[in-house]
Amino acid sequence: MSLVNVLFIMVASILVFFMTPGLALFYGGLVPKKNMVNTFIGVFFICGLASLLWVVIGYSLAFSGQGPVVGNLKALMMYHLNLASVLPDSRIPLGLYALYQMMFAIITPALFIGAIVGRVRLPFLAAFIIGWSVLIYYPLVHMVWGGGFLQHLGTLDFAGGTVVHINAGVTAFTLSLLVGPRLDRTLRHDNQALVLIGTSMLWLGWYGFNAGSALAINEIAVQAMLTTTVATAGAMVAWQVLELIFQPHVTLVGTCTGALCGLVAITPATGYVTITGATLIGIGGAIISYLFVRFIKPLLKVDDTLDAFGCHGISGIWGSIATGLFATHAVNPAVVHNGLFYGGGWQQFLVQIGATAITMVYTFVMVWILYRILSRLLPVRMSARDEVQGWRSEVAE
Amino acid sequence: MSLVNVLFIMVASILVFFMTPGLALFYGGLVPKKNMVNTFIGVFFICGLASLLWVVIGYSLAFSGQGPVVGNLKALMMYHLNLASVLPDSRIPLGLYALYQMMFAIITPALFIGAIVGRVRLPFLAAFIIGWSVLIYYPLVHMVWGGGFLQHLGTLDFAGGTVVHINAGVTAFTLSLLVGPRLDRTLRHDNQALVLIGTSMLWLGWYGFNAGSALAINEIAVQAMLTTTVATAGAMVAWQVLELIFQPHVTLVGTCTGALCGLVAITPATGYVTITGATLIGIGGAIISYLFVRFIKPLLKVDDTLDAFGCHGISGIWGSIATGLFATHAVNPAVVHNGLFYGGGWQQFLVQIGATAITMVYTFVMVWILYRILSRLLPVRMSARDEVQGWRSEVAE
Amino acid sequence: MSLVNVLFIMVASILVFFMTPGLALFYGGLVPKKNMVNTFIGVFFICGLASLLWVVIGYSLAFSGQGPVVGNLKALMMYHLNLASVLPDSRIPLGLYALYQMMFAIITPALFIGAIVGRVRLPFLAAFIIGWSVLIYYPLVHMVWGGGFLQHLGTLDFAGGTVVHINAGVTAFTLSLLVGPRLDRTLRHDNQALVLIGTSMLWLGWYGFNAGSALAINEIAVQAMLTTTVATAGAMVAWQVLELIFQPHVTLVGTCTGALCGLVAITPATGYVTITGATLIGIGGAIISYLFVRFIKPLLKVDDTLDAFGCHGISGIWGSIATGLFATHAVNPAVVHNGLFYGGGWQQFLVQIGATAITMVYTFVMVWILYRILSRLLPVRMSARDEVQGWRSEVAE
Repeated sequence: MSLVNVLFIMVASILVFFMTPGLALFYGGLVPKKNMVNTFIGVFFICGLASLLWVVIGYSLAFSGQGPVVGNLKALMMYHLNLASVLPDSRIPLGLYALYQMMFAIITPALFIGAIVGRVRLPFLAAFIIGWSVLIYYPLVHMVWGGGFLQHLGTLDFAGGTVVHINAGVTAFTLSLLVGPRLDRTLRHDNQALVLIGTSMLWLGWYGFNAGSALAINEIAVQAMLTTTVATAGAMVAWQVLELIFQPHVTLVGTCTGALCGLVAITPATGYVTITGATLIGIGGAIISYLFVRFIKPLLKVDDTLDAFGCHGISGIWGSIATGLFATHAVNPAVVHNGLFYGGGWQQFLVQIGATAITMVYTFVMVWILYRILSRLLPVRMSARDEVQGWRSEVAE
Repeated sequence: MSLVNVLFIMVASILVFFMTPGLALFYGGLVPKKNMVNTFIGVFFICGLASLLWVVIGYSLAFSGQGPVVGNLKALMMYHLNLASVLPDSRIPLGLYALYQMMFAIITPALFIGAIVGRVRLPFLAAFIIGWSVLIYYPLVHMVWGGGFLQHLGTLDFAGGTVVHINAGVTAFTLSLLVGPRLDRTLRHDNQALVLIGTSMLWLGWYGFNAGSALAINEIAVQAMLTTTVATAGAMVAWQVLELIFQPHVTLVGTCTGALCGLVAITPATGYVTITGATLIGIGGAIISYLFVRFIKPLLKVDDTLDAFGCHGISGIWGSIATGLFATHAVNPAVVHNGLFYGGGWQQFLVQIGATAITMVYTFVMVWILYRILSRLLPVRMSARDEVQGWRSEVAE
Repeated sequence: MSLVNVLFIMVASILVFFMTPGLALFYGGLVPKKNMVNTFIGVFFICGLASLLWVVIGYSLAFSGQGPVVGNLKALMMYHLNLASVLPDSRIPLGLYALYQMMFAIITPALFIGAIVGRVRLPFLAAFIIGWSVLIYYPLVHMVWGGGFLQHLGTLDFAGGTVVHINAGVTAFTLSLLVGPRLDRTLRHDNQALVLIGTSMLWLGWYGFNAGSALAINEIAVQAMLTTTVATAGAMVAWQVLELIFQPHVTLVGTCTGALCGLVAITPATGYVTITGATLIGIGGAIISYLFVRFIKPLLKVDDTLDAFGCHGISGIWGSIATGLFATHAVNPAVVHNGLFYGGGWQQFLVQIGATAITMVYTFVMVWILYRILSRLLPVRMSARDEVQGWRSEVAE
């Protein structure tokens, strides 16, 4: 057992945990006051639900067995696992790895709540998160990190571009399409202090998310911290410049959204790229997400209320593909084929596009099926009166 | 000196420090707006007062000497200590252990402030905290962790069920009984964002509190992180289910309170129990605290305003006793007698009940005596006008 | 490479990062509501700007080459650096040290924003921060930590008394003198919850700032954590006592300001002094800053709105000089000449006064020159209408 790696992943787990309440505050600050408390509950309650679900069935479906798409049920309840057994590469106990992955299983469904705030009943949301975890999230973890076919395909996804951000982004898009828009689509950001608090907590926690994914203290983990920082800084500045060009002035919500786009975009690439590459990935993420949110989204008429797809989906897709442009063996020996811009030819670039497309299609189809089933069993939307009034009464049964 | 353990306890100390401002925000968000700033001051000022007091006399009374109930005065001002001397088991310097324990000496008195918000003068509070630390807190630390008789009795208290939570809870109860109720007992939760921020900070910091109490990076520390998470998740979900049963809907304050009850309940057991045991302890804590707060407290007519006893006292008592049910040698070799449910018979269970009862009685009696003395020397309550008006003027002299 | 030191500085970097949004919240909570969002932007946008600038030119000017005043341009874009090369003493990779220092380059300019909130245009601020970083901050880092003449002089500055706090404080003073006062100098603290949240984040992050400056896990790092805590506690209590003497009552803003003064004052001394020395330094910082802010500042008619000079400047100067009083070889072998109170004679005391004076004069002169140049190129102040109205429109162009 490597004691320093154990401490590292303990700290990283704590940091990733902190992201989910951070996201609750970020989303809660972006909605009208009447929806704030509900948005808090709709995000924060996942800390309870998804933790238990991970213990009961999630770990097993993600990491038990070696099927191409999904694990098996032999580790239900994490019961027959030897939590103290040590993983070969990072030399941390299995129980700690399971905890670290549990934190990812909490934050990922929390991300797409932003698309449907203020109109969905809590019981439907709980049922959807359970079904979505079992049918989509755990299998994707297995495919990319648990020995599934996307891993064997050679997909580079350092900290969760496909598994976390594209997945959550596409779920957000599909769900907002299916649930339908709010009755009143005006959106006031009523508590900008919470937006800043939430962004700070997310940025802080993201170091655990990205550097922690190295699973060991080494040069790659350090590189992940550096690239995360410069990508986020580049994206923040880029978004502010775009605001100066297209809008009357720089906004706080834009500044924070830009930073988040940088964090999302660098996630799959963070341990594979140089500082220059990371800066360009961050700037690229902010530009593409900005253009999407400002010019394309209005044409789509999908009410992705807090731009969960515009930020996590778009920047996630860009980051996943850009990993095939900027990844370099010089940074990380795990990169077999350098990215297109680093002399490695088309190989890795096409793998990244393939893995991205597969994730998007898989997520879209499964969300559609799941929604069709669940919406027959449970009422999805709150009453028009509750939606218009907002307040806590909207989570009542 | 084990460098990795030193870093671990440095990080853990920082995390436990963060709990006290977190608690100030949690309590501040639960009170009417007029009492918010005072509640902040009443909790946060303890970071100053209790730190200095710990250096002056606290460390000495807790850890200098081997008496059954309390230490001696040989380490006053921590003056003749060799801060660089290394502790045998965890191989961290004495100075760091003193710092880690200092953070516990800050957060514990902060917990009971919740019982008496909005009606007590700051000078009385300061005097009470000084007396309470010297007469109750430092002795209890000595009894349970510093070589006192509860330690020799074989009490299992991994991270502070007796010393911190039962103690703070019983103090909260006794103090609210003695101080008397607010003039106006209606309670609006005016800033629920702060409740969520505070809960997040507390949960984050609790990892330092529970895992850090292993004092070394090892399987036990990892187990503490796992059990802390699942107990909290279980308690959060349990409280939400109880709200769906007994109340019109799920609330944010309930969700957060449930999580805190889980954190409290698992504290004494965190390094001794399995994941299943931890989940049951968390769920049990939430259920018992919920039933107490909803059905029993109204009969008592004690104005424990923010349920410091209902949460920390009740879940603390449950967790301390439940440690005698669920502790198992398989998780921690320090468990000599397994808990009742793990084949160890009644031995440990009865020890836990005994230690719990002794802590409760000791705390109750000493708070009573201390209050009787101090309330003759200093005015306890603010004027009726100040209490009704609230605002900052209530801390004026 | 020392893995435990790598993890330590990773954690410390994350903690120092967290200080800047913490400062944004602290300052945002101290201003009237109409200026809150602008204050957030004016501080938080530095996380983007200063990070990129550090990569482009900052690292090179601070750490490349061995000139007396400033480095060279050979490491522009950090391009020809071997980020994986290991530093001799702390055995961490160069890339990580660059990241840690990047966080200092973000927080330092953020500090002086407090002096000029609510009246300066964002483009001027951006230009000023760029010029200030190149002309003042990077050279000072070089002089004190990068092999420049203040280092060779024997200046003791453990974590940034001269480089960070005196520098930021004097910049704050000079800038508020040059920019001129607000049109309406009344100041309401509209969101005291943010003041507490920001203070907590700053205190938390300061452990990374002070202990991290040891650059290795050892007794000095532990001592820095201890001294940071007791100095802050002492300063907090001292400020509260001063409020009880000179004002009608204890305030939250005062409690938090006192704590910050303690953190500032101990920064240069943190790894060089005993617990007793640290407590006295903290108390001294609070007393001098309090007396300055309350009795001297009103005579100066300089509108340092949020007391960036009163807190960081005054307590920074005190701490830097007091290091020459309290530093002791017994705590840190790097102390060649003990402080005046520890039997080392006047040597170190005079060096500290010299370094302090040089930093003050250098900063004052350079800010003056920079401002004179920039104010001819760019409009400094927003329109009277924008300043009075506040809101976000004040950052528009």
